[in-house]
Amino acid sequence: MSARLARFLDLADVGRDGVLELLALARRLEKSPEPRALAGRILGLVFLNPSLRTLASFQAGMARLGGTSFVITPGQGTWALETRMGVAMDGVAAEHIREGLPVLASYCDALGIRAFADGKDLAADLADGNFKAMAALIDKPLINLESAINHPCQALADWKTLEDIGVPERAKFVLSWVNHPRALPLAVPAAAVHMAALRGHEVVVLRPEGYALPPVVMERARQAAAASGGSVTETADRAEALAGAHVVYAKEWGSTSHYGDASSDAEQRVALADWQVRESWFGRAAPGCRLMHCLPVRRNVAVADEVLDGARSVVLREAHNRLLVQIAVLHRLLA
Amino acid sequence: MSARLARFLDLADVGRDGVLELLALARRLEKSPEPRALAGRILGLVFLNPSLRTLASFQAGMARLGGTSFVITPGQGTWALETRMGVAMDGVAAEHIREGLPVLASYCDALGIRAFADGKDLAADLADGNFKAMAALIDKPLINLESAINHPCQALADWKTLEDIGVPERAKFVLSWVNHPRALPLAVPAAAVHMAALRGHEVVVLRPEGYALPPVVMERARQAAAASGGSVTETADRAEALAGAHVVYAKEWGSTSHYGDASSDAEQRVALADWQVRESWFGRAAPGCRLMHCLPVRRNVAVADEVLDGARSVVLREAHNRLLVQIAVLHRLLA
Amino acid sequence: MSARLARFLDLADVGRDGVLELLALARRLEKSPEPRALAGRILGLVFLNPSLRTLASFQAGMARLGGTSFVITPGQGTWALETRMGVAMDGVAAEHIREGLPVLASYCDALGIRAFADGKDLAADLADGNFKAMAALIDKPLINLESAINHPCQALADWKTLEDIGVPERAKFVLSWVNHPRALPLAVPAAAVHMAALRGHEVVVLRPEGYALPPVVMERARQAAAASGGSVTETADRAEALAGAHVVYAKEWGSTSHYGDASSDAEQRVALADWQVRESWFGRAAPGCRLMHCLPVRRNVAVADEVLDGARSVVLREAHNRLLVQIAVLHRLLA
Repeated sequence: MSARLARFLDLADVGRDGVLELLALARRLEKSPEPRALAGRILGLVFLNPSLRTLASFQAGMARLGGTSFVITPGQGTWALETRMGVAMDGVAAEHIREGLPVLASYCDALGIRAFADGKDLAADLADGNFKAMAALIDKPLINLESAINHPCQALADWKTLEDIGVPERAKFVLSWVNHPRALPLAVPAAAVHMAALRGHEVVVLRPEGYALPPVVMERARQAAAASGGSVTETADRAEALAGAHVVYAKEWGSTSHYGDASSDAEQRVALADWQVRESWFGRAAPGCRLMHCLPVRRNVAVADEVLDGARSVVLREAHNRLLVQIAVLHRLLA
Repeated sequence: MSARLARFLDLADVGRDGVLELLALARRLEKSPEPRALAGRILGLVFLNPSLRTLASFQAGMARLGGTSFVITPGQGTWALETRMGVAMDGVAAEHIREGLPVLASYCDALGIRAFADGKDLAADLADGNFKAMAALIDKPLINLESAINHPCQALADWKTLEDIGVPERAKFVLSWVNHPRALPLAVPAAAVHMAALRGHEVVVLRPEGYALPPVVMERARQAAAASGGSVTETADRAEALAGAHVVYAKEWGSTSHYGDASSDAEQRVALADWQVRESWFGRAAPGCRLMHCLPVRRNVAVADEVLDGARSVVLREAHNRLLVQIAVLHRLLA
Repeated sequence: MSARLARFLDLADVGRDGVLELLALARRLEKSPEPRALAGRILGLVFLNPSLRTLASFQAGMARLGGTSFVITPGQGTWALETRMGVAMDGVAAEHIREGLPVLASYCDALGIRAFADGKDLAADLADGNFKAMAALIDKPLINLESAINHPCQALADWKTLEDIGVPERAKFVLSWVNHPRALPLAVPAAAVHMAALRGHEVVVLRPEGYALPPVVMERARQAAAASGGSVTETADRAEALAGAHVVYAKEWGSTSHYGDASSDAEQRVALADWQVRESWFGRAAPGCRLMHCLPVRRNVAVADEVLDGARSVVLREAHNRLLVQIAVLHRLLA
């Protein structure tokens, strides 16, 4: 890890020690900025899906290190990109990733790619095949800006946030499903449960029936926990989950029992409107519990104003940490 | 003013002396550029509405000073932003300004925000509540890139333009309503009438019945005029207004008698097609009169080709001055 | 040519010697980069049409030389631009190029403009009137990022590619029409045939009936060939064209016999699906023949996977050369 990183695609590749080194580097660069470390270096950012934090913080991060970046948003000012292999391209997409991505990579020193889940076929999304196919086309340092099943930049920022606010490694970390107008991908919950397990937490996944995280996601987190002395369990019992919790990490995701079926998902949600984090969730069971969320968050649907605007919320710190940890990642990839 | 500015939201905050200092700085930086003054500094630009001059000139201005910028366009590659407080976010907007704006501010050294009027409720737009709510969320230097009722960067550029072309402070400045296919906001006319009054002009607002500027806008301009020795009157009589005019500042805005009512506004306009600036407006009454406009301008609807392409037009100079005065503003905010 | 270039609009303006000097400069800057050559310089990029390579490579090119750039995409975050002269602007476009372009030029040191063919009136597109009207409004160094009938950056990159892969000047260069779901402009085929003729090739334009390049395009190429010792012919006979070919440059373009008539064009294409480059095209007649394409390419419609993914394809090299030659152009325009 003290050598240059080749890619930043998954916290599991980096490992626990690698994470700690990256966070130490992030703290060092915050205290002693290196405004010319990446002078002349160019980061290409490809967004197949919307972004606010990632879009702004990577541009800002390169600038803080003296480098520059360009942004490509396929379908908006740029040709829509085809990702399927072997098809006859007689539809909307004018360019295939087999040309588009190597070309963009050839114009820069590192590339970041965001490619959300298709949200139709659970096995396909869990395999992260689209992102892996793109990664295979690129011979430059590469950053996963959120793929179908991973979001390592968010996980790294969250780990730093847990350190910043003094949550000990053995503390209870509750990943709680929360409501949303429609199904969202599994990338952040999968990354968060893995990150918390890798840090050594007592991880509890709290979710209603029909929204269990897929076995492969749970198993991956359990393996991380085994190595770091933590644990990973799941429950639908809110009181049990919240008792003694140090952190609630709220996150929306789509039905896994009816994955890709929007109308069934909507039916299931009818009874789940109270899966909105409120102050009453904490009470005497978890009075000092902190609230984390990756943002964007639907106020008064996923989390109530009273929680987001209260002292237990650390969502803005998480978002700011995106910048700080990504500066460390960019430094390791390119300096 | 020789100290660092904290925010640039309104020419009234800066005051007459502050404006003159900013313009002197703009001239100094034009003559003696400081290409490293903002090295390492980052400007975030948030556009809730379209832009050409502001979008390009702020990026160029930061670059001229050695800094960098990033652009966020909510709803285009970025989540649509909710501005209403307390609502349950079950609609289109995925992110609230309460998170989005502080997060963006945390990634940069200064933020600029464009947020046009909603155009529905006159009192609400005059109160500029949306912009003020956003400004209250940001603890960094902030620039108003045009709010519901103000456009200080345009006003500052216009003041410089009046200086450049030698229009004396006591000259007659006519703000004239002109036609447009649909209602436009009051930000520019409100800023222009205030700027001209603050500079000390004999300001005449020329507009048809139904398009009077709101009393609060007129009163604010009159107070500025009182302090600087100018005057502010209004009329629907074009001949009276143009007699002896040194400058016509053409601007489109929506009906104020039927504010927010698009069909009534359209009906009112049927009879107003001759509110298009033509050479015949000037004749012997105002032969050397200059034509100002903030751009974009609807040719042959608001102003005729013959005027825009003739010698009296200074619209390109105004637009170029946007860059020059904004460089001074950025320097004062960040150097 | 060793003096500063004023504009880069057409390879014909630069001439054969000028091209060779630009390519020599591109090679020198690749070997000995000048990361501060354009420090403080700003390139404005105006895209009236989509882009991937041009958008990314010009931003990267400026950054490689220490300069910066801004991007304007009319109609997306920026006002739609009116290009017609003399019209009453009561439609969608809020700003005329007569204001928009000079204003943008006044914010930067050089401007690039992309403005595709309207695709309705062949004579108008061949005259390149829109682009010429825009160019006439700009008093700064200007780069044609693809106009109705030209794409000099692509042509320059293609010339370098031919040098890179060792295709001798007297070699046989086949510009072959290939299929596409709909009509595309003539800019790239016109630029490619002219470039190949100027380089001295035995140029053969291979196209089906109804898709002949316009006489003015062919004549311009023939004049270039006459000066450089090459030749330009056309045929619909694939076997004849490919016999002994060193290079096939595949390109899609719209019907010229029914220009601007989408339904007739579609009818004509029904019988042309086999105008897709396949390995079988080469066989014993042209075993070592290389495949060029400007990208984006419709896989398995215009060119088969087997060709694009095989050893004869140099499409990625062409795209990377866009960056390298444009760095030379920017250096000549601005250093």
